[in-house]
Amino acid sequence: MPFSNLEAFHTKLNDLPIQNSDAASRASARDATLTKPPGALGTLEELAVWAAGWQGHQPTLDAPQIVIFAGNHGVCAKGVSAFPPEVTAQMVANFENGGAAINQLAKAFDASFSVHPIHLETPTQDFTAEPAMSEAECVEAINIGWNAVSDASDMLIVGEMGIGNTTIAAALSAALFGGAGETWAGPGTGISQDGISLKASVIDEGLLRHNDILNDPMAILQCLGGRELAAMVGAILSARYKKVPVILDGFVSCAAAAILAKANPHALDHCVAGHVSAEPGHILLLQYLQKTPLLNLRMRLGEGSGAALALGIIKGAFATHNGMASFAEAGVSTKG
Amino acid sequence: MPFSNLEAFHTKLNDLPIQNSDAASRASARDATLTKPPGALGTLEELAVWAAGWQGHQPTLDAPQIVIFAGNHGVCAKGVSAFPPEVTAQMVANFENGGAAINQLAKAFDASFSVHPIHLETPTQDFTAEPAMSEAECVEAINIGWNAVSDASDMLIVGEMGIGNTTIAAALSAALFGGAGETWAGPGTGISQDGISLKASVIDEGLLRHNDILNDPMAILQCLGGRELAAMVGAILSARYKKVPVILDGFVSCAAAAILAKANPHALDHCVAGHVSAEPGHILLLQYLQKTPLLNLRMRLGEGSGAALALGIIKGAFATHNGMASFAEAGVSTKG
Repeated sequence: MPFSNLEAFHTKLNDLPIQNSDAASRASARDATLTKPPGALGTLEELAVWAAGWQGHQPTLDAPQIVIFAGNHGVCAKGVSAFPPEVTAQMVANFENGGAAINQLAKAFDASFSVHPIHLETPTQDFTAEPAMSEAECVEAINIGWNAVSDASDMLIVGEMGIGNTTIAAALSAALFGGAGETWAGPGTGISQDGISLKASVIDEGLLRHNDILNDPMAILQCLGGRELAAMVGAILSARYKKVPVILDGFVSCAAAAILAKANPHALDHCVAGHVSAEPGHILLLQYLQKTPLLNLRMRLGEGSGAALALGIIKGAFATHNGMASFAEAGVSTKG
Repeated sequence: MPFSNLEAFHTKLNDLPIQNSDAASRASARDATLTKPPGALGTLEELAVWAAGWQGHQPTLDAPQIVIFAGNHGVCAKGVSAFPPEVTAQMVANFENGGAAINQLAKAFDASFSVHPIHLETPTQDFTAEPAMSEAECVEAINIGWNAVSDASDMLIVGEMGIGNTTIAAALSAALFGGAGETWAGPGTGISQDGISLKASVIDEGLLRHNDILNDPMAILQCLGGRELAAMVGAILSARYKKVPVILDGFVSCAAAAILAKANPHALDHCVAGHVSAEPGHILLLQYLQKTPLLNLRMRLGEGSGAALALGIIKGAFATHNGMASFAEAGVSTKG
């Protein structure tokens, strides 16, 4: 397996691969010749240059990959979710049978799709009582995520399914960036205001229980995290080493990514935020990560769905960058 | 031709076709059964119900159509644009040769594309001196737009090209909703702050010149508009009669649409705003039209490019609506 302990993974966050500045410069130079006023394609132009830098060549979207990780959470026993925990496994079956939202989006945007359920029959521990995972469990999940990323991919979306995991994402966010449970707790799949208050107090209990490790991002992941989040942490870093740019999804996906950002502020330079979800903690988290979301469509499903939808934006960005004629080719006069 | 004068067109705005409420209700009912928390797909769910109502059946995106109209403007003699007027015809050639941004986006999203240059060799009159068009010229352009929409389409994007036409859009917006030139004038393809001040004063001159017709939307179109805008007005209303929902594009596309909205407040119920552009008047105009844009990516190109990019969102919305399994089909437990 890629990593035998958390320290080995943490070490992998030093001396990260950087982008290919020649490829990025070539993309910028090409952009300046295309038949449009400079900057008129806005974010599309930036996406083409960003991807060229991380892929190391003219941007392509030939092999987008969507990977979904699923896990269950001991903290669900506290009543933090609107849905029962068995829904995680039921939704994994739905993913495998092609019936979920993400399956339709993967088809619509010609992306490969795989789902990786991680020990659903063995939820993590309740983080208010003890660490959510042992180090070995956490590392196992990181390794699953690391191995899930294909070298042949040219764009990665990491998504998740796990009843209770907006509580986990809120706990991680509070541990990493401060604030109390109420700063980060939201309705998730649809709990009441009383439910949100309960969720906030459960998070506060967890923060208090693990107060002594809150300066260590890897320990935060182990003590307050979950298997699907640890797998996303592994996958996002794996993509960096494989020259695969990443589209982050919603609150849970970004909370996993935030572990990496806290360990190394440049760890998410190869990532864009696909969307901002309706879960209120997400916009706050994106501000800490200094990421501007591509979409804002009040989605709050997870599964990588918001990031998958952003594939359409990326597709348009690369199509214009690669396909447009230059002023010289088209015989169009430049600015007078 | 469909209309022999402006009055005949204006009459077509009474008793507009309404949406098929049965088809919309069926879409809402289907949405409620799908394997996701209620509302978790946000705007995607609303788009599916909206399109079902206007198409009159389960939403499809089998035949999206992009039509671009091009015109030239006498007011360019006042120095309101960063590019010379010959660029309009040069860009039309670029559209015909497949080299422009919109060509790449049409290919990326499997949309048909056509461009309709309208008397480029004969610009409209300078609106500070006289009406931009005669009634016959305005009606001819409306008819070109009306006829450009195919009965076989299931989604329409109306775009434009015309050096100087953000000045036209700003003049129409001011005439329809009030405010002075400076309220609505922006950088367009990239003029300086001094250029924007000049543009604002040219608009103010036009408003003063045509002060006596500012209570009549059709006269506003004739006196302050342009051929490509009149064609978009015709196309958007034509789509309504042909049960084709419309994605509006940027400032110029929305200024044309605003003529219809002023004549009948329900005239744009079959339209969504594809994006909000970087042109500062656009967000203000969208507020008057009470449209929430699907995208906000700082684009400012015209050509229908922002609306074409929004096809990806529509595609995702219909794919999830039509393809997802229900809770019953997937054997997933509902909210506990």
